[in-house]
Amino acid sequence: MMYAAIMGYGTIGTGVAEILETSREKIAGSAGQEICLKYVLDLREFPDSPVADRIVHDFEIIEEDEQVRLVVETMGGLNPAYPFVKACLSAGKHVVTSNKALVAAHGTELLQIARDKGVNFFFEASVGGGIPIIRTLYRCLTGERIQEITGILNGTTNYILTKMDQEGASFEQALKEAQELGYAERNPEADVEGHDTCRKIAILTAMATGKEVNYEDINTEGITGKGITGITEMDFRYAREMGTSVKLLGTSRIVDGKVHARVAPMMISKENPLYGVSGVYNGILVKSDRLGVSMYYGSGAGKLPTASAVVADLIEAAQNENNNVSIGWGAERQEIADSKISECRYFVRIAGEAEEKAEMIRTELGEVQALVLDGADEFAVLTKRMTEEEFIQHAIKLDGEWQKKGEYGIRQVIRAMLED
Amino acid sequence: MMYAAIMGYGTIGTGVAEILETSREKIAGSAGQEICLKYVLDLREFPDSPVADRIVHDFEIIEEDEQVRLVVETMGGLNPAYPFVKACLSAGKHVVTSNKALVAAHGTELLQIARDKGVNFFFEASVGGGIPIIRTLYRCLTGERIQEITGILNGTTNYILTKMDQEGASFEQALKEAQELGYAERNPEADVEGHDTCRKIAILTAMATGKEVNYEDINTEGITGKGITGITEMDFRYAREMGTSVKLLGTSRIVDGKVHARVAPMMISKENPLYGVSGVYNGILVKSDRLGVSMYYGSGAGKLPTASAVVADLIEAAQNENNNVSIGWGAERQEIADSKISECRYFVRIAGEAEEKAEMIRTELGEVQALVLDGADEFAVLTKRMTEEEFIQHAIKLDGEWQKKGEYGIRQVIRAMLED
Repeated sequence: MMYAAIMGYGTIGTGVAEILETSREKIAGSAGQEICLKYVLDLREFPDSPVADRIVHDFEIIEEDEQVRLVVETMGGLNPAYPFVKACLSAGKHVVTSNKALVAAHGTELLQIARDKGVNFFFEASVGGGIPIIRTLYRCLTGERIQEITGILNGTTNYILTKMDQEGASFEQALKEAQELGYAERNPEADVEGHDTCRKIAILTAMATGKEVNYEDINTEGITGKGITGITEMDFRYAREMGTSVKLLGTSRIVDGKVHARVAPMMISKENPLYGVSGVYNGILVKSDRLGVSMYYGSGAGKLPTASAVVADLIEAAQNENNNVSIGWGAERQEIADSKISECRYFVRIAGEAEEKAEMIRTELGEVQALVLDGADEFAVLTKRMTEEEFIQHAIKLDGEWQKKGEYGIRQVIRAMLED
Repeated sequence: MMYAAIMGYGTIGTGVAEILETSREKIAGSAGQEICLKYVLDLREFPDSPVADRIVHDFEIIEEDEQVRLVVETMGGLNPAYPFVKACLSAGKHVVTSNKALVAAHGTELLQIARDKGVNFFFEASVGGGIPIIRTLYRCLTGERIQEITGILNGTTNYILTKMDQEGASFEQALKEAQELGYAERNPEADVEGHDTCRKIAILTAMATGKEVNYEDINTEGITGKGITGITEMDFRYAREMGTSVKLLGTSRIVDGKVHARVAPMMISKENPLYGVSGVYNGILVKSDRLGVSMYYGSGAGKLPTASAVVADLIEAAQNENNNVSIGWGAERQEIADSKISECRYFVRIAGEAEEKAEMIRTELGEVQALVLDGADEFAVLTKRMTEEEFIQHAIKLDGEWQKKGEYGIRQVIRAMLED
């Protein structure tokens, strides 16, 4: 019998308590011993809940109870999650968290404390909700050298982009609908500006390289236009024509020890296994040296999927009650390459007539095919592969020439993860 | 340091030896100790290979060498793989295999010997090649109640069907091309008749239920027409029109403790995450009570992907040198429900004019929409959901009436995994 505590009785915490109760026997069978919920820490009371008799308001009760060996952190945010988790690990308790902000900001230190104390710090639920991607990286791809991880890691933006793609909705309409359905927060910034995706790709990159990744080093753009790319219905009209789609991706490519990482909306083809990941689902593509391309798909959020991942971690912690399972990364810092030198193709929408501008475009960008939609006062081209630095130079030159002539120029640029 | 032996120096065995050599340090880091290849058992000599000095022809050398704690079985087939693996486990050695025939036929006994001896019998590579599906089932979905597993588990047939779908190739053309590329054997029966898929879905079903599954209990049809369904170009013309595709699936649904299992070509919709699994890739969809739908995608065969899965198993065996990891199933037999009572929809192609036959079809099958292709002397309908028994009764009645009138009747039936 192992005693557990849950810190934070919100959506996920409630789900964990529920699964611990309803799947008690199955969990005991897998864990090798029963897991018994002793405390639930929350500021609120829950008089009508099944855990009413176990609610405590004082963290020290958990910290000081030596019987409690397993602690679940589902509070979210850094304060007080960070000091509480640190104190639990330091007290020799295993900690399981669903908190990506905590893992991205303090993972290195917390993993080290866990190692020093011979306990475990697990965080499967912090990335991709219920998709077992963290465990896949440390249990299944153990012999592999990871070359790329690219993921649709935020269900809210993927829902919005799917609506725009499949129903021709505007960003504002799709966001409103996502909010009404409870998929998007009232303040959706962390999702639609890519901050959530950024923390998740930082965690995955650290898992892949074995080194600390500072998520602030990762160039991050959302889908609202604060970066270079605000996604519109018009973009999806072209995308459909081209047999592509636009997804908000977090991506890391590891080339010759350099990591090229980025969060941005990108155009991908039908052949990309992430193409079919729609709605609130998440998908994570991994490219590695022997296995090649593999992809993991599932519910990236939601009470029970996320709680299920927390419970899988609890079971692994219970199985390894007396030893630290080797996971995560060390203190050495992984440098992230300057995003200006990362290469891709560019989908570019340009005002005016394709034929009139063909010569100038050829001079700057080489041979590219122009794509014209019925009734549009613009056209689009897809460049060949080049660094962002090169592309920006060409784009400034083109736009400058057109402005000199009093013409409108480039309307939109979307990075394209497409084969040449 | 742990000593290993490889039995069978074919494609996969070669790959395993190669990875053990080239990733020596990474593997040692993950396994907690170095893994050193001591013997390679094969009938042939390999004088120019990097393992020339370790080739042995006599199994007893491996069996009797107490230093060898890890044995890889990549011979394939049952004889002598079965007696050799059994002897290794009985001698207290861990065994890792890529041999689905062995696991499907003797898994129950071999798992029990491993438990009795406190060693491990791992078989990740036996299903889905490099896709970490077995480990996902016992490591990640540990708290989950599995409701369905459906997979594209055979790369050869998926390559053939993809060619037929995307390029309008005939079965014969596509098979020939697959053979020329080395994707299909000269005798392709095990692949195209579904036998390979059958063994794999049997293993996955046993993993999901914890009980022994006799693969012979699973109703198995391939894509050549020996079952009710030989897939043709014509079928794909309708499928494209309907926004669906036809895939050879192994599927198990677990409903109220009953298992409905089947291998057959089935029609699936664009919304199904398996829709995008094309070419030689495999994909496995799992539906479970908390996590909902998840899907695992990757290379289902090939030297290095499969060898990579074998190495991941070796690492886990080394990490658990002195204890048996709880995986697999027990001796209790899982009953498979009579396939006649399993439910789905049916895609039916019928000779003649849709309008002339509308009344009779409505009488037997209820309201169904007829689909007519340009220039075809036939039409198709999609029934509502019903058991196979019900459908067959209706089909016999319809066909009988038409034959009485001297008309041609039903040309094709494909089970459809489509929402009503």
